Amino acid sequence: MTASKAVDDLMQAFQKLPGVGAKTAQRMVFQLLSRNRENALRIANTLQYAAENVQHCEMCNDFSESTICSICKSSNRNRELLCVVETPADLVSFENSGCYNGLYYVLMGRISPFDGVGPKELPIEGLLKRLSEGEVQEIILATNSTAEGDATADYLAELLEKNDFKTTRLARGLPVGGELEYLDRGTLTEAFQRRIAT
Amino acid sequence: MTASKAVDDLMQAFQKLPGVGAKTAQRMVFQLLSRNRENALRIANTLQYAAENVQHCEMCNDFSESTICSICKSSNRNRELLCVVETPADLVSFENSGCYNGLYYVLMGRISPFDGVGPKELPIEGLLKRLSEGEVQEIILATNSTAEGDATADYLAELLEKNDFKTTRLARGLPVGGELEYLDRGTLTEAFQRRIAT
Repeated sequence: MTASKAVDDLMQAFQKLPGVGAKTAQRMVFQLLSRNRENALRIANTLQYAAENVQHCEMCNDFSESTICSICKSSNRNRELLCVVETPADLVSFENSGCYNGLYYVLMGRISPFDGVGPKELPIEGLLKRLSEGEVQEIILATNSTAEGDATADYLAELLEKNDFKTTRLARGLPVGGELEYLDRGTLTEAFQRRIAT
Repeated sequence: MTASKAVDDLMQAFQKLPGVGAKTAQRMVFQLLSRNRENALRIANTLQYAAENVQHCEMCNDFSESTICSICKSSNRNRELLCVVETPADLVSFENSGCYNGLYYVLMGRISPFDGVGPKELPIEGLLKRLSEGEVQEIILATNSTAEGDATADYLAELLEKNDFKTTRLARGLPVGGELEYLDRGTLTEAFQRRIAT
């Protein structure tokens, strides 16, 4: 509780951000109001603009201000590959790695019974509609290597193979630079079981 | 870089917040746009309102929407005590502790040559003007127990005593619940040197 209701309201609003508690919110608000009014207005304006204008791309379901996003529109991408990811952040990771030049489909989530998310809560119809356009030859199920990510990929693999689509998964094994001594048991076991001929 | 300029702009703006890097900004933005548009607009609106309307109280220099803040206006406070703190966050700590019922003066900073902040950069004239009103009998210099906080308190103590004001400082010693085994050397030394008769 400060002496200003506007400051209190703002601290309350910031506490809804992921990873931001009461102390962090207070620090953010005091810093913005002390030295940084310009940035405060910039955040307010860009946030309002984004909240009102960012929709989902009709092809890949990623965030986009236009009906079709710039990746889906691009003529430089391999349109026969479709990489299915859980979140826009995963898409950004692929783009930053530079290893992939195909298109994407963003699920905006994963199958997670604990959070009440089943297959019906995911935009799987949108994915099937997207695939019915006929260009895609291979679907890379690039979900996270977690129980929920695996469940999502398993579900999609079964569904898509039933519909005669070729699906692949990301390889598992040692991370680059990984030292065996510090590796978790699960990863080491997978790397051993999936060992490759030299 | 995402496919949406609005999303990129927003991530850039969030990265100006204290303690927020690229990854955290991305997580905040994606969460706000995925599940939380209402809160996104709430943050945008409260932030814009605060940035445009929160000023400084003319008496205590704390953030306030009105010319005089609610603490300075209150008739339930001891107007003979003035507690000088570095930041609004410090004032909030005092208020939450319930140990103090006087008034405040917020410096909105501290003497810090490394950051280019000398006495001239602090609102010390405002403090002297506030004191010239004549009600205050004791000034508690409640700056942080850091090199910069101590330098600020030393400077103010000298200045105010020259002007015949009574100044005090917060006590130093063991924190409540502090175990000697885990105490830093500086605190233990101070607690020893300032030991009190039983």
